Amino acid sequence: MTDGFDIGARAKARCDALGLAPYSEIEGQLTRRFLTPAHAAALEALAGWMAEAGMSVRRDTAANLIGRYEGEAPAAKALIIGSHIDSVRNGGRYDGPLGIMLGIDVVEALNLAGRRLPFAIEVVAFGDEEGSRFPASMSCSRAIAGVLDVSALEMRDADGVSVAEALAAFGGDPSGIASAARRPEDVLAFLEAHIEQGPVLEAESLALGVVTAIAAQKRLMVRIEGQAGHAGTTPMGLRKDPGPAAAEAMLALERICRAGADGLVGTVGRLTALPGAFNVIPGAVEFSMDIRAETSATRDAAVEAITTEIHAIAAARGLSATVTLMQALAESPCDPSLMALLDASLADLGLPVRRLPSGAGHDAMVMAALCPTTMLFIRCEGGISHNPAEAVTEADCALAARAMLTFIDKLERRERA
Amino acid sequence: MTDGFDIGARAKARCDALGLAPYSEIEGQLTRRFLTPAHAAALEALAGWMAEAGMSVRRDTAANLIGRYEGEAPAAKALIIGSHIDSVRNGGRYDGPLGIMLGIDVVEALNLAGRRLPFAIEVVAFGDEEGSRFPASMSCSRAIAGVLDVSALEMRDADGVSVAEALAAFGGDPSGIASAARRPEDVLAFLEAHIEQGPVLEAESLALGVVTAIAAQKRLMVRIEGQAGHAGTTPMGLRKDPGPAAAEAMLALERICRAGADGLVGTVGRLTALPGAFNVIPGAVEFSMDIRAETSATRDAAVEAITTEIHAIAAARGLSATVTLMQALAESPCDPSLMALLDASLADLGLPVRRLPSGAGHDAMVMAALCPTTMLFIRCEGGISHNPAEAVTEADCALAARAMLTFIDKLERRERA
Repeated sequence: MTDGFDIGARAKARCDALGLAPYSEIEGQLTRRFLTPAHAAALEALAGWMAEAGMSVRRDTAANLIGRYEGEAPAAKALIIGSHIDSVRNGGRYDGPLGIMLGIDVVEALNLAGRRLPFAIEVVAFGDEEGSRFPASMSCSRAIAGVLDVSALEMRDADGVSVAEALAAFGGDPSGIASAARRPEDVLAFLEAHIEQGPVLEAESLALGVVTAIAAQKRLMVRIEGQAGHAGTTPMGLRKDPGPAAAEAMLALERICRAGADGLVGTVGRLTALPGAFNVIPGAVEFSMDIRAETSATRDAAVEAITTEIHAIAAARGLSATVTLMQALAESPCDPSLMALLDASLADLGLPVRRLPSGAGHDAMVMAALCPTTMLFIRCEGGISHNPAEAVTEADCALAARAMLTFIDKLERRERA
Repeated sequence: MTDGFDIGARAKARCDALGLAPYSEIEGQLTRRFLTPAHAAALEALAGWMAEAGMSVRRDTAANLIGRYEGEAPAAKALIIGSHIDSVRNGGRYDGPLGIMLGIDVVEALNLAGRRLPFAIEVVAFGDEEGSRFPASMSCSRAIAGVLDVSALEMRDADGVSVAEALAAFGGDPSGIASAARRPEDVLAFLEAHIEQGPVLEAESLALGVVTAIAAQKRLMVRIEGQAGHAGTTPMGLRKDPGPAAAEAMLALERICRAGADGLVGTVGRLTALPGAFNVIPGAVEFSMDIRAETSATRDAAVEAITTEIHAIAAARGLSATVTLMQALAESPCDPSLMALLDASLADLGLPVRRLPSGAGHDAMVMAALCPTTMLFIRCEGGISHNPAEAVTEADCALAARAMLTFIDKLERRERA
């Protein structure tokens, strides 16, 4: 590239620059929650970089920062490129910000080349993807997509401050938040670049991947009940121990998910024997199941299979089991035609085309209510995220920026056709 | 029997009579810990009943209450019949006291019949089998057996009171505790009747059982380490999840113990996934193993087998495992010739002879350092113990008393021979 700057590498450097105070609430680590002074400081820095890149900059009523690079016609539809500027507590520097910084780099490259497109480009910094301050999350992208439940504004943080109060103090406008919603006819598409937050690309030595869908998810709690007893005085044959039954269930879940297609994964993250004493046969074992797949159908088939197996395992041992659904989230498929453009962009750069689902949620799943969406995944070291050790390479960031520029070229050709 | 009272049934009724205040520290439940006023009140009642049964009564320096029914010769060796008068918090009425009350009933029957034996009978109420007040337990039987580590006197309860202080206030003599030790030449044998605290006799519709040994026990902690990861973004094939490995280990422990002889039992009572979040693949799973058998050899073979399997399971999954020994207790075998007498006593009563190990610890395991020991188990409802729901039948208690009297007859014949 002959962009006058190190495209992509500069995006990474800017993420690093925002990694400490005043862009973090806490000295020595990165904690940047929604509507905090650290959030405001980051938006101020971003606004400057957006303006330098040739964009007009505004904040909407929901605290989104939006830079607009006009197209050939003044009111052209916009390709929105965006991600989130907030972080988890003691998080990494790239989860979110990298997608914004890459958008700014891409626009600056177009601007330096004096290019105007048949569509505008807007770079958006969403403010609360992580939900690390308030119980709700993604209210910024929900506001833009026009799907915000205004009751979310009444949720309060640990200090008792509501979203509405914090938003007003931040310079937003809770009572006017509906005006943040974009009209579908004004939006061409949404592109989000994001670190993978998983180990797949690194394991296959790939810099980039094309996201097929944000996974459908179900969270369930399982309780297997037996009969507590004395660990010394109850022979093996007279036990009603829920522990081995839970063990069989855990192995069944692993087997079902390993055999599944569509990125099926199942996780037992919580696991407890009750009452939990050295010398007491447990009366009950409880464990969680987090089951995700690219499609609700695949996810639900797995949930049904493991639920059936758990009841059979318990029955075979004379125990009882309950499986309780705690949460269900539908999948958010990416747009097939945009995926095809992103595939072709990677191929043009000489990169293998790797499609993969996103097991984690992203603002893109909300934006899908407004417009076609597509996501580009960037390799991260060890798949580590939500951790100060989060790391990406300059080379991968440069490839990501080039892939995004190539995608824009292809979108331009399609729109002119 | 023509004893002038309902032998055995009265023993049960006396346990019931001591089930509430002032024989309990807490109104409405049974909590009788070592060296409390509830303990003193119980000893006062026992002393009265012992005297009525024809015994001379004394307390030793270690707070044991001892009733002696002389034999034909004044300084004859003693058959000691005993168990403990203390309870766990909110415990049952029979765990311990029943063995003392049956001893009193048996002596009273002999006394009413005007019988003197070639040995004395002493009935002993030990004070701290449960260890529910101080960190140490069985210091009373240890004092009698001459195996008390005097450092145990310095242990303190939750209020900071030491055993020595509490013992002195109770009327004991911590500095003279060594004098509580009995000379082996003064003791013929020790007989402890106790509720089974397990479900074996009930499952086989048996009133009584003959204990072969108090089980050898090892307590171990297992930690299997993998790598924590995002439950959504880490494909099944790239996980290092310690959960399924722990599941395989739990099933291996069950398989090994089911296949084992000598009353082998293994229990996973504590089980935890770390960090323990719904959407995080655990970085480690920790669980306890309590492994017991009649012999240390059987127990140790099982510990070795499961340890080997755990390391193999972890290695096959690219994980690491540590198995840490927390506690080891050797078995305490009962005396074969006394067991044979007890077997014959059950047979004389027309009862099936069932031998079984004791998975729980008892004062008999301490007394084995002093003299040959034997234990008679009495069926308890549902195998439930350490619980207010602990229950025995009058009929079973009567059978136990008759078995003990028959045992004494047979011991008399042996001693005269």
